[in-house]
This record gives sequence, C-alpha cells and structure tokens, in this order.
Amino acid sequence: MSLADLIGQEGHGVFRLPQYIKRIKDGGLNTNPEIKTVEERTAMALLDGDNGMGHLVMSQAAELAMEKAKTSGIAWVGARQSNHAGPASLYAMMPVEKDMIGIYVAVGSANHLPPWGGTEMLLSTNPIAVAIPARNNPPIVLDMATTVAAYGKVKTAAQRGEQMPEGWMIDRQGKPLTDPAKAADGFLLPIGGPKGYGLSLVFGILAGTLNGANFGKNVIDFNADSKSVTNTGHFVIALDINAFTDPEAFKSGVDQIWQEMKSSPTLPGITEIRVPGERLAAVRERNRLNGIPISASLRTSLSALAQQLCVESL
Amino acid sequence: MSLADLIGQEGHGVFRLPQYIKRIKDGGLNTNPEIKTVEERTAMALLDGDNGMGHLVMSQAAELAMEKAKTSGIAWVGARQSNHAGPASLYAMMPVEKDMIGIYVAVGSANHLPPWGGTEMLLSTNPIAVAIPARNNPPIVLDMATTVAAYGKVKTAAQRGEQMPEGWMIDRQGKPLTDPAKAADGFLLPIGGPKGYGLSLVFGILAGTLNGANFGKNVIDFNADSKSVTNTGHFVIALDINAFTDPEAFKSGVDQIWQEMKSSPTLPGITEIRVPGERLAAVRERNRLNGIPISASLRTSLSALAQQLCVESL
Repeated sequence: MSLADLIGQEGHGVFRLPQYIKRIKDGGLNTNPEIKTVEERTAMALLDGDNGMGHLVMSQAAELAMEKAKTSGIAWVGARQSNHAGPASLYAMMPVEKDMIGIYVAVGSANHLPPWGGTEMLLSTNPIAVAIPARNNPPIVLDMATTVAAYGKVKTAAQRGEQMPEGWMIDRQGKPLTDPAKAADGFLLPIGGPKGYGLSLVFGILAGTLNGANFGKNVIDFNADSKSVTNTGHFVIALDINAFTDPEAFKSGVDQIWQEMKSSPTLPGITEIRVPGERLAAVRERNRLNGIPISASLRTSLSALAQQLCVESL
Repeated sequence: MSLADLIGQEGHGVFRLPQYIKRIKDGGLNTNPEIKTVEERTAMALLDGDNGMGHLVMSQAAELAMEKAKTSGIAWVGARQSNHAGPASLYAMMPVEKDMIGIYVAVGSANHLPPWGGTEMLLSTNPIAVAIPARNNPPIVLDMATTVAAYGKVKTAAQRGEQMPEGWMIDRQGKPLTDPAKAADGFLLPIGGPKGYGLSLVFGILAGTLNGANFGKNVIDFNADSKSVTNTGHFVIALDINAFTDPEAFKSGVDQIWQEMKSSPTLPGITEIRVPGERLAAVRERNRLNGIPISASLRTSLSALAQQLCVESL
C-alpha cells in the first residue's frame, strides 16, 4: 500500500486501510492464507489465494511468472480466491526490474458498467496494466480502466462537491449524468463505446472465469459488502526480453519511441506530450526525496483507526 | 482473404486483391518467402517472415503457438519482416477450434494517429483481437482498432460522399473533422483519449519493437508505397484452457456470461444487447448458405484485374 502512495496512486494507498481493516474484522478476509499452486505447466500456473490480501497473492503470482519466464521466455500466472490488490501497475512493473515486460489484468471489485446498450451493471472497470523498460527513460507504464473514468474519480468529485464532465456516466435513460451525488442512478461509460465493453468482457473472462474466480453477476461489491468472500481473479504475464533480443538494444529502441512521442508537434493549447509512466516516475522521485504527503482528512481517519486498534497514532 | 469475406470483414477480403497484386508487381512483397524461426524458447518463438504475405506468416505463427501451448499451457509467437495479414480476428480464432483462447495484435500498416495532444502521426490503429470459445454459443470474438473508427470507415464514408460523425477525427487545430474528403488534413482519435493512445503505444511496442519490426516513425504506409519492405510486426498468443480447467466446464461458464449479457435490460431505443462475435457468426452462417455477396463495383474491379493478369474473369 505504501508503494501505491509512493507512485502517486493515493486512491489505492493507505487511504484504503480502514476498508481493509473493516473487512478483516468482519471476517471477509483471511489474514493467514495458504496460497497454493493448483494448476501448473511449464509456462503457466493457477494460484488459489485462500481469500488472502490480493497484494500477497499477486506479488507471489508475479514472482512465479518471472521465475518461469526465465526459462520458457514467457509465463502467465492466474489467481482465484484472491482480493483487491491495489494499483494494477505494481504487478506489471515487478518484471521490469529484471529486464522483463509485465502485463496485469484484474476483475474489478465492484460492477459499475453494463454491457453496451444495457442497464444492468454486470461488468467492472477491469483494469489493464502493461510495463515496458526503457534504457535512459523511466519505464513506459500504462495503467488504465476500461471505462472513461474509474469509479474512484466519481467518488472524489462527490466529496469535493464538483460536477463531472459529460462522457463519464449516463443515467438509466441514456442521458449524460454529471452530478456525482446521483451516481447511484446511473453507470460508467466504457472507452470507445462497444470497444471498451468488449475489452472489459474478454479480459474479465481471462482474469475471472478462466481461473474459476467470480465474473459477471456474481461479482461481490467490496465497498458494500465486507463479509462475503469476493473470489477475486487476476492474471499477470512476464515476458523475458532476452528470449526475443538483446535487452539493452530493445531498451534503446524504447528510448527512441519515447523520444519520437515527446518530439511530436502539439495541438494548440497543449504544451507537452506525455508518455504513459512519465508522471508516475516523477511523483515517485519527488516522494522519495520529500516523503509522501498525507492530507489532513486522511491523517484524521488513520488516527481514529489507530485508536480503535489500540496502536500508536501517526 | 476469402475467409475474411466469409465472416463479413469485406474491407479485408478480395477487395484488397488489387492492392496485394500491385505490391507484388512493384517488388514490395516476396511471393516465395522462407519463413524462419529466429528465436525460440519452450513457450515463445520469433519468426522472420522474409517479407512474405502476412496471412502466411501469421497462420504459421498461430499454428506454432498452438503446438507449443499444448505442452507449456500458453505460448506467444511474434513475427517480423511480415506484411498486412487481413482481419485480426482470423488468427485469434484459429486456437478456438482446439479448445484454446487466442489473442492477436499487429502494428497497423499506416500511421493515422498522433500521440495524445500531438499532431504527428506516429501511431497506427494497432488492432487487438481476442477469441474465446463457448459451448452452445458462437465464440466471443473481440476485434477492435485502438482508434474510435478504423481508417477504412473513413475511406468508405468518402466513397459514399457521407459526412462522418464528430469524434472520429480532428483537424490540426483540434477541431472536429467531419468531411472525409478532408481526411488528409486531420487524424483519427484514439478510444478513451489518452487510454487509446496508451494501448496503441504499448501493444505497438510488443508487436513491433520487441520483434525487431517497424514501429513509430519508420512505419511504411502500405497504401501510398507499394515498393518498400514494410517489416510489419505482429504477435499471437495461444492459451490452452485444459491447463487451467476442464474445457467443457469453462465453455459452459462462457455460455453463462453470454446469457447474462443478453439478458440485461436495455436503454430506451435499444432492442438488443450484442455480444462481440455474434454478428460475425451470423454473417458466416448466412454466407456459408447463400454464398458471399460481391458488389457490382468490386466485380468490375476484379474483372479488370483478371484481364490485366490474363486469367479468367468472374
């Protein structure tokens, strides 16, 4: 969780601690899981997370994928009986340290997306993350929801009393919904309409159904229900660059792509082209130097939690 | 190519024949390629297509991935020195016949997409296809460009003299471009803004740079240049369902997801929810029964080509 804060993904950081603690107290999470490999081949494995923290399960999955990829060139490790694992980029980035490319996908922990044209929320934001090392630049890291906005952004807008831009959500009549206080009356929109629906659907089947994890109607809303086993599914892929080519040559090639994107002329009003992962690297560097900023409201919430758990406050 | 027509992807079918023939005549394509495996591990391979037709190279790549996945559970086969290979769904669907899941990605054969906020067309529509077998329903097949509209749809609108909806393209000022006759003055928009840009970028690196194929500035526009070697890159993944679970149980699970999507209540004005792959299966069935319809203009173009090549006309 502190790693999530370090890279500027505060919505996935210690901010979530009260929610995780509530789930543990309510018996919805196994604090002493026995994570087991239930299926295995040369280049794949399927883990059963024994209802443990998703962070534990998916760190182990990524380690196993990297281990296997060293000999097989690529490995795919899926997991079931897991839980919310924080930012998708964390697990995609693990292989990068070893000159590997990482890919991570999860079934989101609450359904906020109907199939395209529908009104029943059967799908989640199912995030996709891909991390690719460069030589002289930070790794390229894509970490995206398959919806235009992640649900966390809706909650943030509601907290701040701000309106949402058109395109984030629609109501049950198909009309734009811009008041986040009415979010429960509508649903998120997928990127590219039917395309984002398709991405959420196929990656949900790969991360959920294929692993024997929940997907579709049976997904538990982990915000509303802290007791039921979520049976969250995810998968992580590690690709050993060395199997394809010399890693240094590849990373120089990524530097060149990075440079090409940065050098593009810009549209009027745009001062700079961003490469995915650029902001993450800058925030991590700043937080490493200055420490991780914690807002007053977060400090209050954590102090209350500390008191409740009889541990020392911040 | 006839398979592309069979599944209703006419834009990738015999419609393309004149273009392929022109490239062969101009020496831009090797008609007698020696396709070689240049790198190999248990679960991966990298093919050099020797500048042959992409259809040949990627069929061979998919066969190899399926062969390897049988023992390793999953396999990833990349290719360089290849060419345009028609509809992405073809290669994703090959593993489905063998109770496997297929994934296919290609570097598009012409750049029409700038990085988000930029004006230099450094990226292509880089298609992503995923095919998943079901038990009693057609396979779920997602075949999508990472742009809101594929460039072919712009060309079709231009031919028909129709305007494009806002959201497909913008001009160099960032303003909506709706006249397809002015397409050369603007560029395609990615799905979900920066997200589609990110998808096109990372999958382009995986299909291009990682394989030693062209990506970014060095992509050859295969419409404008029929002489230069395109060095097209693609990759295909085969996942053996049997490594994860009983394939029949999995396919029943996919049927259930299919049913859940179809049963969702709909937005006002929408009569039916579509599952990706549904239309493809219906068109294939209809074309199998009735033959593939060929428009008068396509017949004329093919007859002219036949005369030019001294072969019998349709």
